[in-house]
Amino acid sequence: MDLARAVREIGDRQAVADLVHAYCAFFDENRPDDVAALFTPDAVVDYGPESPTIVGAGAIARTIAIGLAGTFAATSHHVSNLQVVLDGDDSARSTCYLYAWHRYVDGSPDGELWGRYHHRFVRTPGSGWRIAGLRLEAAGSVDFHRAAMHPIGRRPVA
Amino acid sequence: MDLARAVREIGDRQAVADLVHAYCAFFDENRPDDVAALFTPDAVVDYGPESPTIVGAGAIARTIAIGLAGTFAATSHHVSNLQVVLDGDDSARSTCYLYAWHRYVDGSPDGELWGRYHHRFVRTPGSGWRIAGLRLEAAGSVDFHRAAMHPIGRRPVA
Amino acid sequence: MDLARAVREIGDRQAVADLVHAYCAFFDENRPDDVAALFTPDAVVDYGPESPTIVGAGAIARTIAIGLAGTFAATSHHVSNLQVVLDGDDSARSTCYLYAWHRYVDGSPDGELWGRYHHRFVRTPGSGWRIAGLRLEAAGSVDFHRAAMHPIGRRPVA
Repeated sequence: MDLARAVREIGDRQAVADLVHAYCAFFDENRPDDVAALFTPDAVVDYGPESPTIVGAGAIARTIAIGLAGTFAATSHHVSNLQVVLDGDDSARSTCYLYAWHRYVDGSPDGELWGRYHHRFVRTPGSGWRIAGLRLEAAGSVDFHRAAMHPIGRRPVA
Repeated sequence: MDLARAVREIGDRQAVADLVHAYCAFFDENRPDDVAALFTPDAVVDYGPESPTIVGAGAIARTIAIGLAGTFAATSHHVSNLQVVLDGDDSARSTCYLYAWHRYVDGSPDGELWGRYHHRFVRTPGSGWRIAGLRLEAAGSVDFHRAAMHPIGRRPVA
Repeated sequence: MDLARAVREIGDRQAVADLVHAYCAFFDENRPDDVAALFTPDAVVDYGPESPTIVGAGAIARTIAIGLAGTFAATSHHVSNLQVVLDGDDSARSTCYLYAWHRYVDGSPDGELWGRYHHRFVRTPGSGWRIAGLRLEAAGSVDFHRAAMHPIGRRPVA
């Protein structure tokens, strides 16, 4: 066993987990610029089929800021079931579960979402690990403000 | 400190956590054969007092397939609070919390379950870590399709 | 890289995560003395503005026991998004998300809380890592038995 490599990989797993958690914390604290700073300049975010794919940290910040300011009075993004794959010395991908609770500005009933995030990460020369890609998928939702979502891919019953 | 041993144990913890997460992902994707393949051939699964204990990967696949096909339109199994104990070179056990959301085929109100999984794991010669035992316990539920569940063992109030 | 130090830090992160999880498990099992034993003798617990700060393991046990005996018929404390910072050789702090479900003795509708725990930890000479501080913050709640909570600090919309 290459001990140094094993320990380095543990640190890499920790670093990408921290990014996933920081995304949730900054989002729920209404800090869109801090959310965006977790991404690479050319990161691709796909929140679903009804919204166009977002490219670049600047566009991420602007898109999130609109939702945070106009739609949500409060949110809480609980992630778990994190599975990280280090697929290169400087790249990784992960899947995690998301349970998200939303309170709306307009007084609509609280919305709940059960789904998944798929992340891609790269280690950048200057800033360490950053999120390079994010895709949101839904297993289901209740009173959620969005109708169409990418599905998690549950196999149809024969 | 034995560094090599410590790093190996970290890898073992990672491996059993991955099994718990794969169980949830395959279940929610309606892949009963992939769920069953996470277990040892003689694994014992105890979902509760009202259903007989399931023994063996084949029986696990068949049992899960029935529920996935006939009862659930969608599910999402969110696990957290994972505590792993390595209780031998090739065996481990864990407890985790489960928050599970279920949408039913028959249109019943969505069911929610708050509970725990207790897992036992063994390292198999050919296939690495596998689940050898699983027990489900409930802290509580709302609109759940099952009435009787193993309790988490909350102490009665004096 | 100092391998021994890196591995020791991984163990420290594991130890403090175990404390957070043990707190939840003991609380949900109605074991207030076991909850209190996770804390240092001079630990400070701040559950919110409407309840006075609790100081010391003995006071923690007494306070929790009152709630567990008189208010809750069942609880389930699901923590996730754990971020640990080792801020000294023998001290650490962490933030995690909490999704807590409560069933009430008096038959009130189940209460749900989405929030955060902030923990401080110290390594004690005799007993290893212990919780030295705990603060609870709420992002939101539904049918919860408490009205005033510390907020998570979401930035107000301009």
